Amino acid sequence: MSVAISPLAPKKQPKMPALDGVRIATAQAGVKYKGRTDVLAMVFDEGTTAAGVFTRSKCPSAPVEFCRNNLAGGAARILVVNSGNANAFTGRKGRETTTKVGEAASKAVGASVGEVFMASTGVIGEPLPAERITASLDGMVKAARPEGWLEAAQAIMTTDTYPKVATAMVKLGEVDVTINGIAKGAGMIAPDMATMLSFVVTDAPIAAPVLQELLSKGTGKTFNAVTVDSDTSTSDTLMMFATGAAARRGAPVIEDARDARLSGLRRALNRVLKNLALQVVRDGEGARKQVEITVTGAKSARSAKKIALSIANSPLVKTAVAGEDANWGRVVMAVGKAGEPADRDLISIWFGDIRVAHEGERDAAYSEEAASAYMKRDEIVLRVDLGIGRGKATVWTCDLTKEYVAINGDYRS
Amino acid sequence: MSVAISPLAPKKQPKMPALDGVRIATAQAGVKYKGRTDVLAMVFDEGTTAAGVFTRSKCPSAPVEFCRNNLAGGAARILVVNSGNANAFTGRKGRETTTKVGEAASKAVGASVGEVFMASTGVIGEPLPAERITASLDGMVKAARPEGWLEAAQAIMTTDTYPKVATAMVKLGEVDVTINGIAKGAGMIAPDMATMLSFVVTDAPIAAPVLQELLSKGTGKTFNAVTVDSDTSTSDTLMMFATGAAARRGAPVIEDARDARLSGLRRALNRVLKNLALQVVRDGEGARKQVEITVTGAKSARSAKKIALSIANSPLVKTAVAGEDANWGRVVMAVGKAGEPADRDLISIWFGDIRVAHEGERDAAYSEEAASAYMKRDEIVLRVDLGIGRGKATVWTCDLTKEYVAINGDYRS
Repeated sequence: MSVAISPLAPKKQPKMPALDGVRIATAQAGVKYKGRTDVLAMVFDEGTTAAGVFTRSKCPSAPVEFCRNNLAGGAARILVVNSGNANAFTGRKGRETTTKVGEAASKAVGASVGEVFMASTGVIGEPLPAERITASLDGMVKAARPEGWLEAAQAIMTTDTYPKVATAMVKLGEVDVTINGIAKGAGMIAPDMATMLSFVVTDAPIAAPVLQELLSKGTGKTFNAVTVDSDTSTSDTLMMFATGAAARRGAPVIEDARDARLSGLRRALNRVLKNLALQVVRDGEGARKQVEITVTGAKSARSAKKIALSIANSPLVKTAVAGEDANWGRVVMAVGKAGEPADRDLISIWFGDIRVAHEGERDAAYSEEAASAYMKRDEIVLRVDLGIGRGKATVWTCDLTKEYVAINGDYRS
Repeated sequence: MSVAISPLAPKKQPKMPALDGVRIATAQAGVKYKGRTDVLAMVFDEGTTAAGVFTRSKCPSAPVEFCRNNLAGGAARILVVNSGNANAFTGRKGRETTTKVGEAASKAVGASVGEVFMASTGVIGEPLPAERITASLDGMVKAARPEGWLEAAQAIMTTDTYPKVATAMVKLGEVDVTINGIAKGAGMIAPDMATMLSFVVTDAPIAAPVLQELLSKGTGKTFNAVTVDSDTSTSDTLMMFATGAAARRGAPVIEDARDARLSGLRRALNRVLKNLALQVVRDGEGARKQVEITVTGAKSARSAKKIALSIANSPLVKTAVAGEDANWGRVVMAVGKAGEPADRDLISIWFGDIRVAHEGERDAAYSEEAASAYMKRDEIVLRVDLGIGRGKATVWTCDLTKEYVAINGDYRS
C-alpha cells in the first residue's frame, strides 16, 4: 500500500460543518487493517430520504444488492460502511453478512431493516467477518455526534493517500442549507462507476424521487466522467441522504424535481460531486498529473464522451503524460480506436493553448519546446476538436506511472 | 527504447527456407534509426496474389489506405515496408508520400502502381521522408535474393526486442508448399488489430479471393485474439501473398475456398499466424509473463471473447500477474465490467489446474501457497467458467510491468 500522500492532493481541506439530522461515528473494528478506523456509521433522523447510484458491474457486491433492494423504500436511518473487505464475490456468505449487519444496524437505531444502507470496500472474494462490525454498532450509534466528517472520510479509505471531503452552503427558499460529501477511491476507477464510495448528505428537505433525480443527473458530468484505469469495481456506490432538518428552520419541502427553487441546490450539489470526483482522480494510484480531456466537434455528446474516455483510458496516452511527452500521435490513435465517427483530416489537437495538430497534420507553427514545457505542469488540459459536429464532453483522468504498477502488483500480498 | 531481449523470447528461431517466387532485400535508409536496416522490399514473381486484413481504426495511416485501394486488384509484385515512421496522421503529405513510394516501387519492378503494397511503422504524425526510401528502391530490387527472412523481420522492428519469424511446410495435392511469415509488434497491440505488421508468403497457387478468405478467417483466433495494452494502432497490417510458384512443381491451383485440398494448408497457415501472434505477445513491452485466458460456459462465443478480452485488458489483472498474485477478485471485477451475461454465483476460476473460486465463492479447498507457486511461472493459464452456456474463447496477453511504463513514457523523446 502507498504511504506518501499524492502530490496532487488538495493543499488544504475545507472545514466540514456539522449538519442537522445526521450524526457520525467511526471505530476500529479490525476487519483487516490494524491501528486505524475501518468502520463508519452515519445515523440519520427520522424522515431522512435516500437516493443512490451503483456500479453497472454484472457481478455486484452483496452490499450493492442490499442497497438496491432497500432504495425502493426511499427512507434511511443508518449507513454502515467498512473498509478492508469488499464483501464481493462471497456468494451465500455475502448475503448472510449483509443480513447480519442489516439486522444489527436496524436494532441499534430502532428502525426497520429497510432503512439500513451499507457499503464495503477492500479485498474481493474474502468472507467479511460480520461480527467484527456488528459488535461495534451499538456503541457507535450511542457515540455518534454531528461532527467528524473528516474522520468519516478517513475510516473508509483503502489505497487512498488522503481523505476526500467537500462542502457547500446554498439557499433553499430563504434558508441556508448545507451539502456535505465524502468519498474514497484511488484505483479500479472508471465510469459507471468504480471502487469508489461516496456519501453526500444535506439537511434540505427533499422527497426521495426528487433526490434520486438530482443525484442521477449529477453523476454524468462528475463521477461518471472520471477514470483512473478503466477498471470498474463490483462495489461502486454513490448515495445521497436528505435529512430534511432544515424544514424546521423554514426551508420548503421539495417534492417535484421541476421545482424552480431547486436550481441553486442543484448547482451546489454538482459542484460538490465534481469536487469529490476530481479528488478521486487526483489520488489515482501512482498519479503525478491530472489530465482534463475535452472533445468538441463530435457527432453527438455521447460520441464525444466515448472518444474522450478512449483517450483517457489509453495506456499509451497515460504513459506519455507520465513521461511529459506531448505525444499527440497517441491521441490520434485513441480517437481512431474509439470506433466513433471521425474524419482524420479534420482533427485538431491542443495541449493547453498550444495547437499541436491541425486538420489532420502536425501544426507547422507548433514549438516542441513550448509543448514540452507545458507537459511539465501537474495539471494537463488536452483538447481534441473533430470538426464534424457539435457534440462535446469533458472527462478527467491521471497519468500512468511505475508507481501504479508497484501499488497494484503488491496490494494483496 | 528497450535493449534487453524479452525473457519470453523463443529459445531458438526456426531456419527460414527460401520460397520460390519471392526475393528479399533490406537497406539502411536512415528514415529515423541510424546503424540498422529500416526498409524491407519483397519482390514477387508475376502471378502473385494478395490478401490483407487491416486496422479498424477510424484514423488509419496513409499506407493502410493505399493497400486497401490496391487490394481490389488482387495482384502483387512488390511490398515495401519501413520502420521508424508510421506515415500516419500526416494528411495530404502522407498521401503524397505513398504516391511517390508507389510510383518508384512500380518503376523498379516494372509493374503497375496497383501491384505495389506498403506499410510503415514507427512515430505517428511526422512526415515520412519518401526520398530516403525511393532512393534505395532500384538497388534493393536488383539485390533482392530468395534468402534473408530473418533480416526482413529485423528491418521492420521498432520497440521489438527480437525478430519474429515462423515457417511451415505442408502438402498441397502431392506437392510440398511452404508458408513463411514475419511479424513486428510489441506495444499498441490489441485486436482489430495493433501496431502490428505481419507478412506471410506461400508458394502455393491460390486465387486472391480464396487467399483473402483463408487470411480473414485465420485472424480470429490468432492475431485478433492477442492484446498487450488494448491500444489499437493506426497502421495494423497483416498481408498474405501467394506466389504460385509451386504450380510449376505440380501443385494444383486453388480457386475455390471450399476446395478440400486446402485443409492441410489452412491448418498450417493458422499455426503460422498463431505462432507469430504469440511472439508479438511474448515481446509485449515490458512483458515478463505470457497469460492465456480461456472463458468457457458463456452465452455465446462472441460473449466469451468479449469477457476474455475484458480480463486480458484489465490493468489490475495485468499488474496482479506482474506481482505474481493469484488475485482472482480482480478477475471477477473484469468479468463484471465486460457487461456480458454472467451470474456471479455460478462463476468458477482456475489458475492453471488450481481452482481458486467455485460457484461464486472462494474455493474452500484451494491452497494460497500452491497458487502463489504457480504464479511464479512465466506462462500463466487462467480459466473462467461462467456456467450459463456453451460459448468459449481463448485470448493471450502479457503482464503489465514498470518496464511498460518506462518504455512508453520515454519512447519519443
